[in-house]
Amino acid sequence: MTKQLDAVLARIDADIDNSVGRLFDFLRIQSISTDPAYAKHCRAAAEFVAKDLTSLGFDATIRPTGGHPIVVAKSAEGSGPRVLFYGHYDVQPVDPLVLWETPPFEPRLSQTPDGRKCIVARGACDDKGQIMTFIEACRAYKTVTGKLPLPITLMIEGEEECGSAHLFGFVKDNAAELKQDLALICDTSMWDPATPMVTTSIRGLVYEQVNVTCADRDLHSGLFGGGAQNPIRVLSKVLNAMWDDNGRVTIPHFYDGVKELPESVKADLKSLNLTPEDFLGPVGLKVPAGEKDRMLIEQISTRPTAEINGIMGGYTGEGAKTVIPGKAMAKVSFRLVDDQDPEKIRTEFHKFVRARLPADCTVEFGNFGSAPAFSLSFDRPELGKALGALKDEWGKKAIPVGEGGSIPIVSDFKRILGMDTIMVGFALDDDRVHSPNEKFDMTSFHKGTRSWARILDAMSA
Amino acid sequence: MTKQLDAVLARIDADIDNSVGRLFDFLRIQSISTDPAYAKHCRAAAEFVAKDLTSLGFDATIRPTGGHPIVVAKSAEGSGPRVLFYGHYDVQPVDPLVLWETPPFEPRLSQTPDGRKCIVARGACDDKGQIMTFIEACRAYKTVTGKLPLPITLMIEGEEECGSAHLFGFVKDNAAELKQDLALICDTSMWDPATPMVTTSIRGLVYEQVNVTCADRDLHSGLFGGGAQNPIRVLSKVLNAMWDDNGRVTIPHFYDGVKELPESVKADLKSLNLTPEDFLGPVGLKVPAGEKDRMLIEQISTRPTAEINGIMGGYTGEGAKTVIPGKAMAKVSFRLVDDQDPEKIRTEFHKFVRARLPADCTVEFGNFGSAPAFSLSFDRPELGKALGALKDEWGKKAIPVGEGGSIPIVSDFKRILGMDTIMVGFALDDDRVHSPNEKFDMTSFHKGTRSWARILDAMSA
Repeated sequence: MTKQLDAVLARIDADIDNSVGRLFDFLRIQSISTDPAYAKHCRAAAEFVAKDLTSLGFDATIRPTGGHPIVVAKSAEGSGPRVLFYGHYDVQPVDPLVLWETPPFEPRLSQTPDGRKCIVARGACDDKGQIMTFIEACRAYKTVTGKLPLPITLMIEGEEECGSAHLFGFVKDNAAELKQDLALICDTSMWDPATPMVTTSIRGLVYEQVNVTCADRDLHSGLFGGGAQNPIRVLSKVLNAMWDDNGRVTIPHFYDGVKELPESVKADLKSLNLTPEDFLGPVGLKVPAGEKDRMLIEQISTRPTAEINGIMGGYTGEGAKTVIPGKAMAKVSFRLVDDQDPEKIRTEFHKFVRARLPADCTVEFGNFGSAPAFSLSFDRPELGKALGALKDEWGKKAIPVGEGGSIPIVSDFKRILGMDTIMVGFALDDDRVHSPNEKFDMTSFHKGTRSWARILDAMSA
Repeated sequence: MTKQLDAVLARIDADIDNSVGRLFDFLRIQSISTDPAYAKHCRAAAEFVAKDLTSLGFDATIRPTGGHPIVVAKSAEGSGPRVLFYGHYDVQPVDPLVLWETPPFEPRLSQTPDGRKCIVARGACDDKGQIMTFIEACRAYKTVTGKLPLPITLMIEGEEECGSAHLFGFVKDNAAELKQDLALICDTSMWDPATPMVTTSIRGLVYEQVNVTCADRDLHSGLFGGGAQNPIRVLSKVLNAMWDDNGRVTIPHFYDGVKELPESVKADLKSLNLTPEDFLGPVGLKVPAGEKDRMLIEQISTRPTAEINGIMGGYTGEGAKTVIPGKAMAKVSFRLVDDQDPEKIRTEFHKFVRARLPADCTVEFGNFGSAPAFSLSFDRPELGKALGALKDEWGKKAIPVGEGGSIPIVSDFKRILGMDTIMVGFALDDDRVHSPNEKFDMTSFHKGTRSWARILDAMSA
């Protein structure tokens, strides 16, 4: 810990009401990116961010894209690893408006049913509240010490909620400028309101459509039933064969490149004690469906999966129709981890399906995307510093956890810039992100700001 | 053979042009039953039939129903088993009209590409042409001998092409009048243009919908993938388990009540030499999909089957969506034979599905109908007489074959009246039944009429 950290933290505490006021100003901007009618509000949000960062000494510019602009702000002050902070100023649409207790762009302080103080507005958490924790930490540093602790570049985009269509090209076109030693993102959540978390990996994805054709037309089961192959039966056979009785995926070479977690990380994950009751209970389930010899937390975050996302064939209307369809379709996706090779898995999956196809049936595959997994090396020193800083702030050990879903920008940073990402966020499960009455806990905002101050301090040391 | 049969056959030959003329008059009536606009034409067709049968000495009446009327005609002349002949005067709609080479209700003589003379019109085969083979046989008999050979009742309905909604009730309400020793139907086909066939069994049906629910909502596979059960996966497991590697249905007690065919019938079926090339080739298939130790002809006619008629779950639109659905649905049907009990099979199927369900998933079943199979005893004497008569007419052994589909009226006759049915028909595979340019071979019409004369003669002896 550097000697000025105490003063920075004290400044954050003293200035918290003003911090909330600035966040409120940001939240009043109706920066809904998916609706063209709100383009000028998105522009206003970009200007708000650029102006605020300029006031902190950043060289901030608003860069045009084919869509909403991207704010890039640079500072070379301080010493230590050069970091790129990524976030987004755009928000989700607000409909159904009728479900909001107060207007979505009129931020207000409120309380959760169990008495936690919170900020309610569209974007309160995702991602305006979260990025302001980082910016407020920078502000306190600048105020107390006269400069920022590290060389920091911020890239705040305006299309995250509608697909980030122009971000990939922007990163590619500005690779030299954006490539830093490490990326930081504040758009993830805590484990629970008391337990900080660092997201250290994200799963990759392979998404395939499988179209099976048997007869060249639909057949009547009275005439052909028993004699003609049925593509739904073929699909059932193929799909059922994808897992063994222990929930392990049976496609050859599927697990090539999957690493075992370090024992210490396994112990950390175990300490979270994620129970089926807690995780599956709220959606009406109770039996973990993944590999039987893995903890539930591993199944959903650090282990690869196969999933059937859709299936259709034959008659699906009301009542009965005795058809044997000519075609049937399934959508299958794989979540990948570590060094699993998406293209190799795609190829093996194709072979797996073809090997189970009757001789008179054919299959066509549709490729709907693939992305490799990203995982941060557990021995990267900045990770240890972030975990330590979070423990100091929250008084509880911070846990490195894998994210089950995909965050394309993190893969892009790795692929295009060769840059690792550390994801630290303060969202909570009850934040109603993307839903009416979105909120951000005051504790998340305040201690989140203090957390970033500690993390930046630790990294600069 | 009775002594007058030769004279009756000669009369049929001499009168064939007039027979065609009468069929043409019948075919000109636009008796499309499904379209209310054609109600008066249906009435006209009923009147045509009643008038013609009255002229042959039948006591013919047109009976009202909730829909189109039913013609019932009775004659007590002759001796031997009392038979009920069932047929229908209504026809399918004619659209798309543009595909007809000539107007559908202007019957004409034409030739098939390989030179067979035929009658072209809507209903030429189904069922006006077929029922007229029976009526013309009666006419020749009456003309030559002065009376009909057997006590005959005809029931000619007008709603077969739109579901026979009022037939079941009519049969039930008039059971005493309609119950005879045996029913005859002329609405089936020959094996091929040279080989006559008697349809001796029809498969029954059990139709079930299976709704599997796992989570109480759709889940995101990034968050829940690997941890949450997927109802499509559950369905795949259940459906795939329905067959063993030899294509045999694995549901316990499924084959209870299934009889082995007599060796002589097996030999007859084998002599038909139905090849996968002939049967499956035209629809783009080549590998029989049923029980591996059964002939293809058995698979599609005399063996019970399980079939998946439809399936749907999750995302089925264009492209990718990484959803884990909460629900998925499949439609499953079983074709039954012999003494299989529909309700027992339904119950066993429910148990089979429930036994494969994860503990946190539920299933609901929808019942979309069931009907037992019907099969004529192979030692019923009228069957032997019909087979013999057909062999005499066509110069080739007639084969008793099972119909793969269901013919509800045959089940109704058995259930309501305790009456067996012999089905003899002269349709051919290229008759374009229900399609534009429907036709009936002149040979089918002429030799079909002669066949009925021989059958009635044999039964009366």
